[in-house]
Amino acid sequence: MGKILRINTKDKTTVFQDIPDSFAGLGGRALTSKMVLDEVPATCHPLGRSNKLVFAPGLLTGTPAANSGRLSVGSKSPLTNGIKESNSGGLVSQKLARLGISALVLEDKPDDDTFSMIVIKKDCVEILAADEYAGMGNYEVMEKLWDRYGKKTGLMTIGQAGEQRLKAASIQQADPKGRPGRAMGRGGLGAVMGSKKIKAIIVDDKGCDRIVQADPEAFKAANKKWVDLLKNHPVTGQGLPGLGTAVLVNLINEAGALPTKNFRTGRFEHAADISGEKMVENIEARQGVVAEGCHPGCVIKCSQAYNDKDGNYLTSGFEYETLWAFGAHTMVRDLDDIALMDRLCDDYGLDTIDTGVALGVAMEGGLLEWGDGKACIELIKEVALGTATGKILGNGAAFTGDALGVDRIPAVKRQALPAYDPRSVKGVGVTYATTPMGADHTAGYGVTANILGVGGSIDPLKNDDQVELSKNLQIATAAIDAAGLCLFVAFAVLDSEDGVQLIVDMLNAQYGLALTPDDVVKLGISILENENEFNLMAGFTKKDDQLPEMFNQTFPPHNTKWTFTEDELQDAKTFTVG
Amino acid sequence: MGKILRINTKDKTTVFQDIPDSFAGLGGRALTSKMVLDEVPATCHPLGRSNKLVFAPGLLTGTPAANSGRLSVGSKSPLTNGIKESNSGGLVSQKLARLGISALVLEDKPDDDTFSMIVIKKDCVEILAADEYAGMGNYEVMEKLWDRYGKKTGLMTIGQAGEQRLKAASIQQADPKGRPGRAMGRGGLGAVMGSKKIKAIIVDDKGCDRIVQADPEAFKAANKKWVDLLKNHPVTGQGLPGLGTAVLVNLINEAGALPTKNFRTGRFEHAADISGEKMVENIEARQGVVAEGCHPGCVIKCSQAYNDKDGNYLTSGFEYETLWAFGAHTMVRDLDDIALMDRLCDDYGLDTIDTGVALGVAMEGGLLEWGDGKACIELIKEVALGTATGKILGNGAAFTGDALGVDRIPAVKRQALPAYDPRSVKGVGVTYATTPMGADHTAGYGVTANILGVGGSIDPLKNDDQVELSKNLQIATAAIDAAGLCLFVAFAVLDSEDGVQLIVDMLNAQYGLALTPDDVVKLGISILENENEFNLMAGFTKKDDQLPEMFNQTFPPHNTKWTFTEDELQDAKTFTVG
Repeated sequence: MGKILRINTKDKTTVFQDIPDSFAGLGGRALTSKMVLDEVPATCHPLGRSNKLVFAPGLLTGTPAANSGRLSVGSKSPLTNGIKESNSGGLVSQKLARLGISALVLEDKPDDDTFSMIVIKKDCVEILAADEYAGMGNYEVMEKLWDRYGKKTGLMTIGQAGEQRLKAASIQQADPKGRPGRAMGRGGLGAVMGSKKIKAIIVDDKGCDRIVQADPEAFKAANKKWVDLLKNHPVTGQGLPGLGTAVLVNLINEAGALPTKNFRTGRFEHAADISGEKMVENIEARQGVVAEGCHPGCVIKCSQAYNDKDGNYLTSGFEYETLWAFGAHTMVRDLDDIALMDRLCDDYGLDTIDTGVALGVAMEGGLLEWGDGKACIELIKEVALGTATGKILGNGAAFTGDALGVDRIPAVKRQALPAYDPRSVKGVGVTYATTPMGADHTAGYGVTANILGVGGSIDPLKNDDQVELSKNLQIATAAIDAAGLCLFVAFAVLDSEDGVQLIVDMLNAQYGLALTPDDVVKLGISILENENEFNLMAGFTKKDDQLPEMFNQTFPPHNTKWTFTEDELQDAKTFTVG
Repeated sequence: MGKILRINTKDKTTVFQDIPDSFAGLGGRALTSKMVLDEVPATCHPLGRSNKLVFAPGLLTGTPAANSGRLSVGSKSPLTNGIKESNSGGLVSQKLARLGISALVLEDKPDDDTFSMIVIKKDCVEILAADEYAGMGNYEVMEKLWDRYGKKTGLMTIGQAGEQRLKAASIQQADPKGRPGRAMGRGGLGAVMGSKKIKAIIVDDKGCDRIVQADPEAFKAANKKWVDLLKNHPVTGQGLPGLGTAVLVNLINEAGALPTKNFRTGRFEHAADISGEKMVENIEARQGVVAEGCHPGCVIKCSQAYNDKDGNYLTSGFEYETLWAFGAHTMVRDLDDIALMDRLCDDYGLDTIDTGVALGVAMEGGLLEWGDGKACIELIKEVALGTATGKILGNGAAFTGDALGVDRIPAVKRQALPAYDPRSVKGVGVTYATTPMGADHTAGYGVTANILGVGGSIDPLKNDDQVELSKNLQIATAAIDAAGLCLFVAFAVLDSEDGVQLIVDMLNAQYGLALTPDDVVKLGISILENENEFNLMAGFTKKDDQLPEMFNQTFPPHNTKWTFTEDELQDAKTFTVG
């Protein structure tokens, strides 16, 4: 087992701790959520000294298992005021695992106003002054840190948004090329890092041995099948490498579920302009990269390098949700405007979903014209300038709506809804309402059976079976997040009888265990139970597990409404083990 | 019995309704809270079309009973997201009562963006275009409306803050001189009026008969004793007419309970500069008015007319809480700066407590220097300009703290704490925590027995007996608010064996009833139960009935902490009807 590295950001002291029984056998989201539950007072101020910020590699991270390099970060969220886990690719997770660090925990907060950075190497942990980097965007900081520490180090930094402790602030990880393209975006955890005055975390595993498997042969055999499984599924083997998640723009628009003009209709007449097909056309014409991975060992490669009109690198290609938030939601149809907004968010350290939804809500409140991409860009720039307008936008969609007195705010637990209208994809709507994370498609991606025909087929417009679907996906997702696996493996796993068993086989071969698929389900349930317990202690009730009243309105083109009752939705949080 | 006047602000239709059984016998806060509970969906958006804004005179309003002219307004609060009642003096309440209107209810909201105003006369109700007044402050609007409708009409208007639907927006009433000195300040109900696009409500009772008593002789006899009671008590007969509530500055400072520099210590070294004594000195030197009432029939006269250095009227004299919020809390010591801030708040329609506390929180966040009154004035002016900074400040203290990433935010249920530190006046601290209103000293003024020796004497620094004290005061206050009586009558009532009986005698003589003091207690309890029920349905839990963690810190000079547990505090909400 690894160690827990605790850093007191007030005293600048560090301590390595053996993993206590209560955290034994946990990794990724399982570990971050349990530590937050056990160690953070649920009613504390998320930016106060009682909150903690916990980073944890997954259980398979650092092993040769394909797509196992995700890093979880957990805390009490300044956005939702509940528990939060967010994860991303990048280089840090695998390096922490090789360093034998199961969890990195930032505690307390300084009394003064100066920024520090943390450098973690094989033989030492240093806390150094970082004021020379304060005020910089993530692009510049990461470039300087790679110049200083070498181009193989893993980096996590916050931009101007995190420094200002804004509720939509992300923590960005450097991608394998040293660019801040990987975001631990949702829930404002960059603000927690900012409250602790940590500008950057540098992780260098030079000199560390490779991670050894308890049963190397069994691991190798399972991983080979695992790679085959991922490469042979149409979504992970063809769709995602081909167009990235942007493949969804035309698909979800066709399904009448692409929320347009702040969730007024499900079809955007200019969807083709912001589609994956259009994105790839631009990338190819400008000599970008159509498919690249977010971390070493990825065999899916759903990311891209998107260049500007002059052929210079602009941003990592877009998640579908980013295209939607800056596109259909705000009626902006210029892909290069969207690309620049995406880059600015990566640079300043802002969640693209909450920021994009905030722009649409600002349009609702009269601050901008619908579809004015150039004005959106200027507004986002205010975040880095630290203006009052920037603080409003950078605090996310719900805050922006409140600032402007808007009553159409698409958010659950104060977190903005992502890119699937819950009236046309009811399975994901149940997830928005009931996940402890606040509205989050990744917490239980009901789009699978509702739209994609993955893992079965359920009518997206009807309530039937959606609660059960969402619940099962939430459990599976939590377990995948604990393993450190990319969520997209779920497409292949859901369509395969062997998928879960292969994950179990790799866990068993890694640790010398004899887990069964049932144990994985139990792990997923225990994560959700811990998270729900924290939220209960923080004051959440079933009233918080519902969509806002704007979704009671009829939604074209299918003219559906959101009709789940609070009590029906609570079934998605009622777990029976075994 | 009177009628309910319902106005649909979307269709511009009006309807008079007989009072149904469910609302029979209720007035003031009893009626507003019951109507909000019965008619407003608890989870609705407070600025959406489902919310309602209910105005109700008290049960004794319009009668000759001294100090009975308060008007209650109730709604779902945009500030707390819970139920809200706020009340003030002015001219409207007695006029509504004489017009036979027990409740005026604003419903729905317009689709367009134009403002209207409501004119209520004996024989007609008109809804007229009011765009000519949009954008104006309350001083200018009221002057124009008195020019247009006569100097005896009652006026309620919103300023630029309410128009922008900001969470600290008040509804201002004209005082007897036509100035917007009377605020229904707390909870942001001006934003609800703004969401319904009502700029002004004009009430003219010309031609109405006086209200008749069921037993005129009994009423007259009781009211005579009532007037004597108020005039002979040292607080209502001498303290309040002498220095207004500003008498408390030196008193509370002496008690070590004047929260200074955002609740860091209980004594302000410059307290004398912002004291009632200093205020009266200025008023007398500048030919102002030391004592005037907020409504006809007031025998206490705790208000003032405060002139500027040139002898021109500047503002109605200050509530103690206003002096504190703009003074000790922000370390500002210039009374004329405070006077101007008070005037601007009346003019723009802002709650002085939430605005003042927001200024201190903005200082905490580095936006202003501690003690810089001139900068405070400029910041408040931004509200009228509609800038982003103005929107942050105008949304109140909790919102301002969130915008700036501050973790020292003195608020309960998102409403800013008033001018008594809960660690040094624990009785009022229990009220802050447990009243359904959000932090509010007027909801159960434990300062009485804790500091003033009124209604008994309880050590303000100890927990003993404070929960019971607060509960009893909350019950009594609710009943007083239902009667339409000024809360300050409580000083005299608490120290008199006959006080409650006199109120009961007047109610019985007015309506031909045979109530007992127990019935008044039951009425108070039923109001609180209705309000707590609404909040429960809105998603509040006992986690919301607690002070923020900043009050766990030791507070000089008495070095006390806030130590009540959640469960101890719940006793303040557990009622047994006698």
